[in-house]
Amino acid sequence: MEGKKFSVIKGGGITSPAGFKAAGICAGLKKSGKTDMALIFSETPAKAAAAFTTCLFAAAPVVLGRETLKKNSHISAVIVNSGNANACTGKNGLKNARKMAELTSKQLGVKPSAVLVSSTGRIGVQMPMGKIETGIKKACSSLSANGGHDSALAIMTTDTCPKEISVSLDVSGRKVTIGGMTKGSGMIAPGMQTVPHATMLAYVTTDAVINAKFLNKCLAEGTDKSFNRITVDGDMSTNDTLVILANGKAGNREIKSGSKDGANFKQALFHVLENLAKAIVLDGEGVTKFVTIKVLNAHSEKDATLCAKSIANSLLCKTAWFGGDPNWGRVMCAAGYSGASFNPDKVCLFYDNIPVVKNGQDAGTAESVLSNVVRNKSFTITLNLKSGKESTEVWTGDISYKYVKINADYHT
Amino acid sequence: MEGKKFSVIKGGGITSPAGFKAAGICAGLKKSGKTDMALIFSETPAKAAAAFTTCLFAAAPVVLGRETLKKNSHISAVIVNSGNANACTGKNGLKNARKMAELTSKQLGVKPSAVLVSSTGRIGVQMPMGKIETGIKKACSSLSANGGHDSALAIMTTDTCPKEISVSLDVSGRKVTIGGMTKGSGMIAPGMQTVPHATMLAYVTTDAVINAKFLNKCLAEGTDKSFNRITVDGDMSTNDTLVILANGKAGNREIKSGSKDGANFKQALFHVLENLAKAIVLDGEGVTKFVTIKVLNAHSEKDATLCAKSIANSLLCKTAWFGGDPNWGRVMCAAGYSGASFNPDKVCLFYDNIPVVKNGQDAGTAESVLSNVVRNKSFTITLNLKSGKESTEVWTGDISYKYVKINADYHT
Repeated sequence: MEGKKFSVIKGGGITSPAGFKAAGICAGLKKSGKTDMALIFSETPAKAAAAFTTCLFAAAPVVLGRETLKKNSHISAVIVNSGNANACTGKNGLKNARKMAELTSKQLGVKPSAVLVSSTGRIGVQMPMGKIETGIKKACSSLSANGGHDSALAIMTTDTCPKEISVSLDVSGRKVTIGGMTKGSGMIAPGMQTVPHATMLAYVTTDAVINAKFLNKCLAEGTDKSFNRITVDGDMSTNDTLVILANGKAGNREIKSGSKDGANFKQALFHVLENLAKAIVLDGEGVTKFVTIKVLNAHSEKDATLCAKSIANSLLCKTAWFGGDPNWGRVMCAAGYSGASFNPDKVCLFYDNIPVVKNGQDAGTAESVLSNVVRNKSFTITLNLKSGKESTEVWTGDISYKYVKINADYHT
Repeated sequence: MEGKKFSVIKGGGITSPAGFKAAGICAGLKKSGKTDMALIFSETPAKAAAAFTTCLFAAAPVVLGRETLKKNSHISAVIVNSGNANACTGKNGLKNARKMAELTSKQLGVKPSAVLVSSTGRIGVQMPMGKIETGIKKACSSLSANGGHDSALAIMTTDTCPKEISVSLDVSGRKVTIGGMTKGSGMIAPGMQTVPHATMLAYVTTDAVINAKFLNKCLAEGTDKSFNRITVDGDMSTNDTLVILANGKAGNREIKSGSKDGANFKQALFHVLENLAKAIVLDGEGVTKFVTIKVLNAHSEKDATLCAKSIANSLLCKTAWFGGDPNWGRVMCAAGYSGASFNPDKVCLFYDNIPVVKNGQDAGTAESVLSNVVRNKSFTITLNLKSGKESTEVWTGDISYKYVKINADYHT
């Protein structure tokens, strides 16, 4: 990256920024016996910004989270469980989510309204509150300044690996650190209102002193450029959540909109978000290829996105990529039915930088050359609509036998 | 069906109505050596109505077909080839489609403007016009009053079986016959402007004397209730076409809108269209289950359709059905992110007639009972939104390993 103003902290995660502790423990919610409860704690209340799923069947913790953040700008803790989504659980589900916040707040000596709750896992089953209560106590007593990695492991469901990152940057002579973790592997098709879709959970911590309005702006813009650009299977979840907490422990000059500090912070934060979002695709259920879809020169941003997501979600494109087949007709087709408006006779298509389609027709490149591109583990498909000035980029994967197997075998 | 006014003709097809001939021959377009060219011919020019794909990359024969039907209300022949879609082939492709109409018209002694052309197969490759010319001659000389079945075989691509039907009904003491054939197996997600999506081709012949305006109305309404209700993989094709030809040979009293004759004809025609549309799903690539999605009491028809198609196209739902898993959370999720507007706390869900979700929550039916439903070869998922008065129905299948295999292995 040119003009990179931050450095990546090797092995870093959500406890890399000053003043954050975390834990990952086993509450007994997963049949596998793996850890299934994570806790993030900020020693001083942190400014919070969040984005949630736009799915109408929003899970109870999402409903509660929206309510909490309407009333409170500062958050001290986030309690997260995997193994149960607490979605489609009605009034009782909401009561249980509130109870989770209360139990956590009691243990930590903070207000219930300073606690956010997240859940991921099975839909439609009431929370086993006995296990939850014991688990929360255990999580609170396990908090550690080195607990980031444990918490990243505890939020996993069908993920095959934890997804963490941390970066630091200089702000007015002070070291500001940003840490992040995420989970998500299936039901991934971002599109949150200022937040992605899929049971994708993401938590970002920072010790930066930052203007609250600017923090919210960074979150909204950053989400659109990261989680809202990924799609594994086109399915959005009931529980998608992205939370960012800024506790100010770095003691830097306040980061504001329009400043050089602001630009640098944004750059570092967006790197964290993009890295976490791409990690979800790379760990997508059964994914064998990482495919970047670029749509250039669309009439509108909406058209660019329609087109890119239509290609990214096309089962025929995804299975062709799995088969290492350059089948560009499927890509054109998906663009053509996307709902985007453009002149089909102007469209040019590239696989990496190799011309595939020129002005709506075969560019004449030998099929063997195109095959070599789509047989790679990672490649870029660029569609130039030549209809306007808006462009976008979406990251996705292929669909393999393994995807079908994972999702046919994952019994409720 | 209650009050059924028609009878199904066993073994019937597009040559069952009087005055129609057809042929299915091998023009050498398919590597497999199977038949790949079909011809439908009406001894007297037939009133025609048609609907085409809404995909922006409409294939050359679709572009030509729209042009032809703008100028001509009567059609004598339809020449169809499989093995090459003549899509994304530019001006040369359009020239070749015109040439196909010309060659056919010359052989049959009719005007070029009385010939429709359809193509299905590989995208982006120019038509091998030498083979096409020889093939058209062969097809014209092979026309037979019993050629319906041969033509149904010749339009197949990845289809595993031909799809044909014929029905007859009494109109003013005369026997009126309707015949139909279709092809389509993958790239199936109807949504034509008065026509389905997917490389789905469908041809309906009838010897009825019928008012032209009413014929068009029947086609539009019938398409919406048949082909536009199916989805195999959510992918729409560049070549989708539905053509209906009415040659008047039955000599019946003219069928008009608002009459009893009109109602009876509609009933029979809709049966033909629904039967052909469902046959496509049943023969869908790798499909092991036939799933009917009913959405009841939506705010608007648009909401009902958004909801039903979201469920029908959800990869997570489709893989769960393949696995015989009742996983209703995935169904609720797909409804929730569909974009339809409803109150999630009112929603009820049924598998066949068994309650699954009541007012947004688990209805308490034992999982084993639900498993028994989704393990069947065919079942119905009914979502009652309780938000309005509009309802719809969509027919779809599951996604199996075989779907992935077929589409990963189908090389360009």
